[in-house]
Amino acid sequence: MKHSANPEPHGIIAVDNYYMREALVEAAKAGRIGEVPIGAIFVWDNQIIVRAYNLKESTGDPTGHAEILALREASKLKKHWRLSGGILYTTLEPCPMCSGAMVQARIDRLVFGAYDPKGGAAGSLMNLLQDERLNHRVEITAGILETECGQILKDFFRERR
Amino acid sequence: MKHSANPEPHGIIAVDNYYMREALVEAAKAGRIGEVPIGAIFVWDNQIIVRAYNLKESTGDPTGHAEILALREASKLKKHWRLSGGILYTTLEPCPMCSGAMVQARIDRLVFGAYDPKGGAAGSLMNLLQDERLNHRVEITAGILETECGQILKDFFRERR
Repeated sequence: MKHSANPEPHGIIAVDNYYMREALVEAAKAGRIGEVPIGAIFVWDNQIIVRAYNLKESTGDPTGHAEILALREASKLKKHWRLSGGILYTTLEPCPMCSGAMVQARIDRLVFGAYDPKGGAAGSLMNLLQDERLNHRVEITAGILETECGQILKDFFRERR
Repeated sequence: MKHSANPEPHGIIAVDNYYMREALVEAAKAGRIGEVPIGAIFVWDNQIIVRAYNLKESTGDPTGHAEILALREASKLKKHWRLSGGILYTTLEPCPMCSGAMVQARIDRLVFGAYDPKGGAAGSLMNLLQDERLNHRVEITAGILETECGQILKDFFRERR
């Protein structure tokens, strides 16, 4: 009864966990075709409108990260580059390119799983999503299903060694 | 005769000016269709292999900057995301997204025209291309045909006001 007085935070975490599980499903698809297992989900009005996973090696596209693919697909569906109102879920903290793309697309919020201490631009090396000098700021929720999101990467690289 | 003793720097500047003029031709194409006039040229083995201009509004793609389009097209031609050896010419200092993409693509060198004090990530607000913590560094030459590259932007925004 103590917790029911303020159920909202638990509700939000449950929702974030739910979408992050879906992002993990995408990450696993990447891993099965030899891509670094990173997945992303784009949510609009409480609905998943895009699912994407890393395709950098398969496509030979240096911008083929899950997050970029998700943003590009979402903008196709919305018929506009401005994706205000959208939330991006990604299993790994985004790199500078992807973080910059989120600012360009004006998304509302980023939710990520594992931190990337070597290349993360949403708090680890830098925070491009909340740089007061840029023309847009993105809310960040970090560490959702952090262990699972990190484990799928560890397993992938261990198997390849 | 004094200058002929060391002709190389002049030669390099002449070459950079030549390619930047081509990037300006692309920028003008963007302006004519109502896009912010920014152009890019991708050079490989002293040859232009890609010409691109900003298509963000026309395509509705938040990643539709000239630099991203140039990198994606170059990777299609080279059939690989790794574009080591390539040089990107762009009329405006790149944003964080585009700068991050150049690091992802491992290009050798960026040459840009006008500085972008409000959003540039190749020295103005930050320098993502030469961040020792990231896994690649890109050589930068800044300010080539700076006046012309800035003027085409000023003219565009003045006309739209």
